[in-house]
Amino acid sequence: MPEMMKAVIKPHKGPGLEVHQVPIPSIKADEVLVKVRAASICGTDLHVYLWDEWAAGRVNPPIIAGHEICGDVVDRGSMVSSHKVGDYVSLESHIICNICRFCRTGLGHICENTRLIGVDCDGGFAEYISIPAQNAWPNPPDLPLEIAVLQENFGNAVHTAFAADLRAKKILVTGCGPVGLMTIAVARAIGARAIYATDISPYRIEFALRMGADLALHAIDDKVIETVLEATDGEGVDVLLEMSGVPSAIDQGFTLLKPGGDAALLGVAHGPFTFDWNRHIVFKAASVIGISGRNLWRTWYQARGLIRSGAVDLSPLVTHRYKIEEFDKAFETMSSGDSGKVMLTP
Amino acid sequence: MPEMMKAVIKPHKGPGLEVHQVPIPSIKADEVLVKVRAASICGTDLHVYLWDEWAAGRVNPPIIAGHEICGDVVDRGSMVSSHKVGDYVSLESHIICNICRFCRTGLGHICENTRLIGVDCDGGFAEYISIPAQNAWPNPPDLPLEIAVLQENFGNAVHTAFAADLRAKKILVTGCGPVGLMTIAVARAIGARAIYATDISPYRIEFALRMGADLALHAIDDKVIETVLEATDGEGVDVLLEMSGVPSAIDQGFTLLKPGGDAALLGVAHGPFTFDWNRHIVFKAASVIGISGRNLWRTWYQARGLIRSGAVDLSPLVTHRYKIEEFDKAFETMSSGDSGKVMLTP
Amino acid sequence: MPEMMKAVIKPHKGPGLEVHQVPIPSIKADEVLVKVRAASICGTDLHVYLWDEWAAGRVNPPIIAGHEICGDVVDRGSMVSSHKVGDYVSLESHIICNICRFCRTGLGHICENTRLIGVDCDGGFAEYISIPAQNAWPNPPDLPLEIAVLQENFGNAVHTAFAADLRAKKILVTGCGPVGLMTIAVARAIGARAIYATDISPYRIEFALRMGADLALHAIDDKVIETVLEATDGEGVDVLLEMSGVPSAIDQGFTLLKPGGDAALLGVAHGPFTFDWNRHIVFKAASVIGISGRNLWRTWYQARGLIRSGAVDLSPLVTHRYKIEEFDKAFETMSSGDSGKVMLTP
Amino acid sequence: MPEMMKAVIKPHKGPGLEVHQVPIPSIKADEVLVKVRAASICGTDLHVYLWDEWAAGRVNPPIIAGHEICGDVVDRGSMVSSHKVGDYVSLESHIICNICRFCRTGLGHICENTRLIGVDCDGGFAEYISIPAQNAWPNPPDLPLEIAVLQENFGNAVHTAFAADLRAKKILVTGCGPVGLMTIAVARAIGARAIYATDISPYRIEFALRMGADLALHAIDDKVIETVLEATDGEGVDVLLEMSGVPSAIDQGFTLLKPGGDAALLGVAHGPFTFDWNRHIVFKAASVIGISGRNLWRTWYQARGLIRSGAVDLSPLVTHRYKIEEFDKAFETMSSGDSGKVMLTP
Repeated sequence: MPEMMKAVIKPHKGPGLEVHQVPIPSIKADEVLVKVRAASICGTDLHVYLWDEWAAGRVNPPIIAGHEICGDVVDRGSMVSSHKVGDYVSLESHIICNICRFCRTGLGHICENTRLIGVDCDGGFAEYISIPAQNAWPNPPDLPLEIAVLQENFGNAVHTAFAADLRAKKILVTGCGPVGLMTIAVARAIGARAIYATDISPYRIEFALRMGADLALHAIDDKVIETVLEATDGEGVDVLLEMSGVPSAIDQGFTLLKPGGDAALLGVAHGPFTFDWNRHIVFKAASVIGISGRNLWRTWYQARGLIRSGAVDLSPLVTHRYKIEEFDKAFETMSSGDSGKVMLTP
Repeated sequence: MPEMMKAVIKPHKGPGLEVHQVPIPSIKADEVLVKVRAASICGTDLHVYLWDEWAAGRVNPPIIAGHEICGDVVDRGSMVSSHKVGDYVSLESHIICNICRFCRTGLGHICENTRLIGVDCDGGFAEYISIPAQNAWPNPPDLPLEIAVLQENFGNAVHTAFAADLRAKKILVTGCGPVGLMTIAVARAIGARAIYATDISPYRIEFALRMGADLALHAIDDKVIETVLEATDGEGVDVLLEMSGVPSAIDQGFTLLKPGGDAALLGVAHGPFTFDWNRHIVFKAASVIGISGRNLWRTWYQARGLIRSGAVDLSPLVTHRYKIEEFDKAFETMSSGDSGKVMLTP
Repeated sequence: MPEMMKAVIKPHKGPGLEVHQVPIPSIKADEVLVKVRAASICGTDLHVYLWDEWAAGRVNPPIIAGHEICGDVVDRGSMVSSHKVGDYVSLESHIICNICRFCRTGLGHICENTRLIGVDCDGGFAEYISIPAQNAWPNPPDLPLEIAVLQENFGNAVHTAFAADLRAKKILVTGCGPVGLMTIAVARAIGARAIYATDISPYRIEFALRMGADLALHAIDDKVIETVLEATDGEGVDVLLEMSGVPSAIDQGFTLLKPGGDAALLGVAHGPFTFDWNRHIVFKAASVIGISGRNLWRTWYQARGLIRSGAVDLSPLVTHRYKIEEFDKAFETMSSGDSGKVMLTP
Repeated sequence: MPEMMKAVIKPHKGPGLEVHQVPIPSIKADEVLVKVRAASICGTDLHVYLWDEWAAGRVNPPIIAGHEICGDVVDRGSMVSSHKVGDYVSLESHIICNICRFCRTGLGHICENTRLIGVDCDGGFAEYISIPAQNAWPNPPDLPLEIAVLQENFGNAVHTAFAADLRAKKILVTGCGPVGLMTIAVARAIGARAIYATDISPYRIEFALRMGADLALHAIDDKVIETVLEATDGEGVDVLLEMSGVPSAIDQGFTLLKPGGDAALLGVAHGPFTFDWNRHIVFKAASVIGISGRNLWRTWYQARGLIRSGAVDLSPLVTHRYKIEEFDKAFETMSSGDSGKVMLTP
């Protein structure tokens, strides 16, 4: 076992990342050491990379970036009986306390002491990462790397799509970034009758069709309201899955939501915005739910079921592959809007 | 049986109402004729009285006002077997079609063909009213007039309070108009652990305590956030019941709502407003539901159960009584903020 | 318009049916007259045909048999605005009162005044049938006859499969008669991870695989418990859909149900039987729900969604076709266990 | 700190218990040592005492009995940060693994590796007990001993009563042992409209009325079916809370359950019995749920809320008090049927 490893770190406050040699992390009694096979890039990583206001307010360098990770368990702490060396695992990025009122009532995804790997503690754009054993989700040995690495992010899609009853329903997905695209696949797998999708990237609009959307529209250039109303006999959609965080898309989505409909919200807006509360929620008797992370650990079981049964095929999602040293190029690709998921390997 | 009756009507477009002699209405095959015993005034009636923008856009005079009504069945149409002459009834104000996709799936409260009595067709500030039999809810003969007349409005409170699980939970009620006050009583009856309430009328703040609130605060003058956080060990409330429609109160309510909490929204805002979507719903993983009218007819059964068991005592609610001729005085009282419900008798 | 029509009737108490010429039924103000295109045979029809104890206690001859019907509206009563002549419709067999506490709270499927067509009043093994307009479900003009005729029965499958959350779950379907077979197809369409099925007819076991079961076993000859436990890594199934009414199958099903699992029960047993209450429900913390008919009318909307989206393909279900005069042969086929659904045409 | 303590132990296989001096237990890193203030006797303890078939098959002496315990934390393991010395706690009796699929999905109450204190490991009829910190529920310092000691058992009542929607509903509680009695109090606190109760002990029938039942009947001597039907206008009850495990009471309960009703089952039967599946569940479209222990840890939060708000008053429940040396007398009292809860103090 070597003592040092390659890692992509934020060395100090400010934009950019660097590749450094750092010590391989030690593990605590309840942790496992994972040799990273692959990582993928999340929007959160981009915030850290660019060092925007949110990142500047939260991240304390030096820190290793990255939280969408899969790899192999190569060591375990003295109290770990749930995992063994050789397990092939995907990582859950939220380290939760198990003690707070949320953790103790099945709401670990909103644990009040959550630490996010790659943001609040060292991440996995590196050769090794140490992590509490409960955060290492065992995969079957033959699960393709490109799917194993996506499971954490896929969990956002599952959490969102499972937040409403989609069976035999008409669905609108606003926002076709990677999570939106995966949400379309989930909605299809669990019985949605019709799936409409919007985005502003032609690449992603076309991608949405491949993932199972019946109709994918340009949110600005196409006549979204008219087109979806026509497709739904004037009724609108039963369920809105909001993945964009864009006020105009949110307004469009709620305008198309039928009375008594459900909306699940994963998209994060840039800040407060003006919203037609009465028309979109109160008079409409709509049900709206905010989605944060993955329901721990129910979402992981659900994701596993969808993947293993073949109901959802994630293989088209990873469209670009880089070595971790090529992180600049990887982030550029990710920012372009002309990609699915971008995968890094050590 | 006389042929003419006294009625409070909106004779033509514009502010105000007038007392006229008009023909007693005839009934269709599926209707009953109800001799009005009492009516009460709703906020909607005030809009019609004042002839605001909403009223001007919807109401077509001449029309008899009023939709919170109780009385006695004095005649029934040829197809009516569910009611008999002599039944003492309270009226549901939404005449629904029974045919649309909402009515056919247990969502009659958002029927797409709803007509509201006193707004879209003749109401009950009069000696008689004709109404579909299904809109006449039978009461026990000994139900006090002051309770019978309130049941329709009480149904709003029941619908709101039953929209979330309040059992052993901490609740915030923002807005203590009559519906807010009744909602407090319902929350208490169905097991809320603690009930906090806000308003800006000292009269209603005091009234809230009498209806069962543990703490009633002035939304502007009191330190609502600090006080409720302190009362909840810094945790905030489990459930927000929003009855005000005031953006600042809504913001206050969502600020106090704990992560994973539920919000039920009955209050109607004056129009779109700026709202912190991320912080209040998405990151908080909140569940938000819009409340419209009463769930037909489930809410009526629930309201009956609460009243008959004595779990909710509505008797303090009616604070003022007038003859229908005194409608000007009645509306003035209702607008003052220094009243509970105002009752009219023919 | 002729005055007489051909109908398969139970002329008097006792086994068997007869083809008679009878008057074409008249319609009431809220009814439509449907010219029958096709009918299919239900287990209930078989009880009436054989005149078993249940039939002898409920049916009052003379009566026209049959309740799974599709056809065209050829006349409508004076109050009917929801349908027009020419509509191609499938029939709901339960005529409900719209007035009782169940009908008024979204539970029309357990209406306390239900009348079943073909059992409590004249049915549709005939050239014409009159029916309340609300019981005539409009189909798109191009819906194949073999699917239109099955929709009522398909609704049982939908109601059962929608009674539990099957998404990414492992399911056991005990009993692969036509409803069981359709239930398998629904479970597949709405995201079940794995579907196991049992029956004692080799024909139906094979049919179950064609409808989407991952594994179909002989309930007696195969080692069901061992096989399903092995297939589920010893965990058992998440959901039991019980379609057989056979005590040994019910015991098998609950033995395989994992703790905290859900069971939906459509199968009707011959009478009371011995059941291990503690082990199968109490200690297991199981949730069990009885399924009766279709949720009116939610199930019909759901069935429509599954059919129109192509998520469920019912076309393999009708395996035999007869003229209504050949009812003896049709009932014989239906009883053999070697058929899917048997269709009759006038 | 002494080294030995007094404890009520099952020294070897066979009936009876003995008081011995045994070493004060040591604690592991994640455990706390609790100095017992009080214990109460559960039906499970009686099985261990009498050494019935169940106990003989599960319990491995020597073992300290008792699992309904409250006391003070006097020491804590090195990893415990959630508790401190001096905390006044009530104990949850199920030691769960936190790792299995149930624990990881909010279903810790059916953990597949559960160990029950006083049955699978040393209990608390003693001066001290060591327990995982997560099993020690903090109480406010002024909580009366008689309430603190009951919380674990009270949790069964809360879990059962919270398993169905009781708001404004009519409830039947079959079986008025201590948990049944507490269930009546919970049902009253969370808005049940009417509560009917049955038992065969005159003492408990009278006790049920004091806890809030509207009507308490002798299950055999009174005309239960007729009386409850009359009290419910022939409709039966909306919800059955089955706390007896007696087949005749279960049959009575389901006979009185209205169509579409809910049943929550806590009572454990002596073994399989004959049940009218069709009439009681399938045709009735009933929802039935088995209740096991407490939902961990949601039920504890709910119990806390009901107690602290004063909505439920448990003070009448403890009717007898003994020193732990008087266990024979205590068990005799408990078996008589003429007691509420029996409390032991070291």
